[in-house]
Amino acid sequence: MKVPEPVLAAMRQTNNLFDSEVIKNRKIEQLDLVYTANARILPPGARMIEGRSHIKTFWQQTISDLGLKSATLSTVDAEATGESVIEIGRADLTVGDGQIVTVKYVVHWKKEGDRWKWHVDIWNLNE
Amino acid sequence: MKVPEPVLAAMRQTNNLFDSEVIKNRKIEQLDLVYTANARILPPGARMIEGRSHIKTFWQQTISDLGLKSATLSTVDAEATGESVIEIGRADLTVGDGQIVTVKYVVHWKKEGDRWKWHVDIWNLNE
Repeated sequence: MKVPEPVLAAMRQTNNLFDSEVIKNRKIEQLDLVYTANARILPPGARMIEGRSHIKTFWQQTISDLGLKSATLSTVDAEATGESVIEIGRADLTVGDGQIVTVKYVVHWKKEGDRWKWHVDIWNLNE
Repeated sequence: MKVPEPVLAAMRQTNNLFDSEVIKNRKIEQLDLVYTANARILPPGARMIEGRSHIKTFWQQTISDLGLKSATLSTVDAEATGESVIEIGRADLTVGDGQIVTVKYVVHWKKEGDRWKWHVDIWNLNE
């Protein structure tokens, strides 16, 4: 089913906040507004990580290791199903040396409180 | 929401068919029973692939390139939402030299006709 425009707008808000606050301003605590409390991430090259506090540790380390400067997220497709949205997206990551790394991802979105957040987040590289 | 047992059983049937027919017996056409017609896969190291016929080409090539001998799939978590199921899983792939490669994945399941099939399929490696 089509995702209603207000939900798409809320998703864009979350995606932009990840870039502007978490990555650019290094405000790791803002991940409270990005991931659900019981979220799980499945990063390439690591085991699945469960729960927001472990996810914060992951991103703190990863931002620092990669010298991550920005993460521009764009939705390729989004489908509403029940109380969830399944998004296929693309992330353009600017890393330490200015190189841009393109990542594709799937996110299972859920509403937590009044915000749409990432509940399951998996990604990989094109190359 | 919890996935009803008959749906979990149907999912196991699809997952087993991928291993027993597609991988072990190299019956690529059996992917008709595994993926929805408009399915998309997001493999690591490649761009997103759309549609069952392109997905067949991908698997034919990949089975041959890796000398893939078996793919044991197990569900780590599954959640029902609307007409869909979101599954987090683990695949143990036996490749040409007998080595086992462990993959983690997220699949968005949909019912097509009387079968539960993979509609979005993304995976990556732990290492």
